[in-house]
Amino acid sequence: MMIDQKPEITIAVDAMGGDRAPEIVVKGIERAMRQHPEARYILFGDADQVRPLLDGKKALNERVRLVHTDKAVDPHAKAAQVARQRGTSMRMAIEAVKAGEADCALSAGSTGALMSLSYLILRALPGIDRPAIASFFPTLKGESCMLDLGANLSVNATNLVQFALMGNVFARVILGVRYPTYGLLNIGSEDTKGFESIQEAAVELTKISDAEAIPGSYVGYIEGDGVAAGSADVVVADGFTGNVALKMGEGTARLTTEYLRRTFRSSFMAQLGYLFAFRQFRKLRYRLDPRRYNGAIFLGLNGIVVKSHGGTDDVGFANAIGVAADMVAGDVVTQIRAGVDAVNTQLTETPAAE
Amino acid sequence: MMIDQKPEITIAVDAMGGDRAPEIVVKGIERAMRQHPEARYILFGDADQVRPLLDGKKALNERVRLVHTDKAVDPHAKAAQVARQRGTSMRMAIEAVKAGEADCALSAGSTGALMSLSYLILRALPGIDRPAIASFFPTLKGESCMLDLGANLSVNATNLVQFALMGNVFARVILGVRYPTYGLLNIGSEDTKGFESIQEAAVELTKISDAEAIPGSYVGYIEGDGVAAGSADVVVADGFTGNVALKMGEGTARLTTEYLRRTFRSSFMAQLGYLFAFRQFRKLRYRLDPRRYNGAIFLGLNGIVVKSHGGTDDVGFANAIGVAADMVAGDVVTQIRAGVDAVNTQLTETPAAE
Repeated sequence: MMIDQKPEITIAVDAMGGDRAPEIVVKGIERAMRQHPEARYILFGDADQVRPLLDGKKALNERVRLVHTDKAVDPHAKAAQVARQRGTSMRMAIEAVKAGEADCALSAGSTGALMSLSYLILRALPGIDRPAIASFFPTLKGESCMLDLGANLSVNATNLVQFALMGNVFARVILGVRYPTYGLLNIGSEDTKGFESIQEAAVELTKISDAEAIPGSYVGYIEGDGVAAGSADVVVADGFTGNVALKMGEGTARLTTEYLRRTFRSSFMAQLGYLFAFRQFRKLRYRLDPRRYNGAIFLGLNGIVVKSHGGTDDVGFANAIGVAADMVAGDVVTQIRAGVDAVNTQLTETPAAE
Repeated sequence: MMIDQKPEITIAVDAMGGDRAPEIVVKGIERAMRQHPEARYILFGDADQVRPLLDGKKALNERVRLVHTDKAVDPHAKAAQVARQRGTSMRMAIEAVKAGEADCALSAGSTGALMSLSYLILRALPGIDRPAIASFFPTLKGESCMLDLGANLSVNATNLVQFALMGNVFARVILGVRYPTYGLLNIGSEDTKGFESIQEAAVELTKISDAEAIPGSYVGYIEGDGVAAGSADVVVADGFTGNVALKMGEGTARLTTEYLRRTFRSSFMAQLGYLFAFRQFRKLRYRLDPRRYNGAIFLGLNGIVVKSHGGTDDVGFANAIGVAADMVAGDVVTQIRAGVDAVNTQLTETPAAE
């Protein structure tokens, strides 16, 4: 028994989502058990495939309840098809959240399917027009989060403002930043830059920041190179730009890591150098390890849904479980509701106060 | 005298553009003289400031003609203001191209001012609705180029197709790729992903590729992480996304380089390792040096205009001169005209042939 025992939480897991499911899903849960003793799991999936992975593992079986279904979402299915199909492992995981049987749902299946099913079943929170996908990544100053990462192609000013509110909660709960800075992704720092929707959102966010309606402050436009520099804890973008930007960052990190690998192999002296610097390089690799940043969150729904990267391994899946556990512990849904209310109250009062 | 002497070219240079003008401009020219003996320069700028930098330098004075103007574009001026002001160093450089006195214009001044003045004075090529900004960068496979990088916020399918044509010429002339692959930046690889404009452009580019109207081939959608992976020689995007993506890549490269620096300083053993690997690391740094990729090109105009980064040094400015010289030698304007004609001919003929 731990002294500071956390309240028990239940995670509904789609055992069949992802490239190497259900193996990495079960292995990921095993790996996460030590760090998250508070977590219990309902596993939705094919018993023929999942049961053998659980057999003979006492600690695991104490935490996991397996619910059989032989249906899984086809990763190549169209959205309409996914929406029609009942009893899939992904759908059942989300329905468990809706029914109050689980505190959150986790899947490594298709992002599109998970997003549309989550929206269909859980619906958006009052005051949130469009849910968004958020994730976090390393920066020069620590870690930042960005949203939307692909749920919404086009957005208006109101959507962007709501994304900022949700990102603000995310930064507080997941990154542990008490007063997060938030900014809008744009192609310059001047007021006149970018789309009208961004310029209008900037006006709104300035008001929200000035009124201190939410913790932290609005820091203006963030250019592409400001993201990795850590110019804001929360970077707000439309789903198209946010998706491209995040993946561009991942791709560039992979490029420089590969250049580095080639550098060390390029001469005997360099190889010798690597031996000396080995321990520190292991730390560097750890710091940039994409598995550490696994776990994209669907924000703005009546419930918590976390998406693991489809191609991750058990280490990555365990990290996504950690993100899910933090989201539940931080009571993200209530926090977002509170943020929306605070902003609505403040902004309704502000004109009268002027 | 060199045996394979290149035909003489003339570059009209805005001596007053950029953070450290005119010093780095003149130093950059000096530095470029050896590699580009074929280049002559008309320098537009304040004689009081520029003349002392040239004094006593014989080789430099043989190549440079100074045209005095005490007017320079204010980097904070609005587009309309820039357009009205006559006799600025930037404007005179572009006018020299228009008048046929120079083969191309080069400035490290404000991108917005340079783009709008270039468009105003040189106008777009027939068959090109919107000029675009292009640049190149290192990838896992070598180098790729991307456009648009900020000239056009919103684009339609026709714009994207024309960007692909121009990028194709850029890749052949600047990167030396005989048969460039070209793709559209998007948030997924499936046909249904992204905006309608992108999907329509994909259909057009497939036709162009199938008809072999231009050298190389269309390779489909490129996701953010495909850019640094080198999935296409030419990556086509709207100006907003392209700008954010390129800067995100720059920022992430800076982040990993900084992590690397910290890694080497973090222990005595790591410092020792650095000493051994020093020579190879110098190569790595050279490979990622942003000054090597200095020089954004305005494509689709009746003339060549190259933009140097405003904050670069003489090494970076010399590289921008190199890009300008390559653009002139490769006769980019004629090549783009030919590309447009070839596509128009092929696509008009194609339906009849079906």
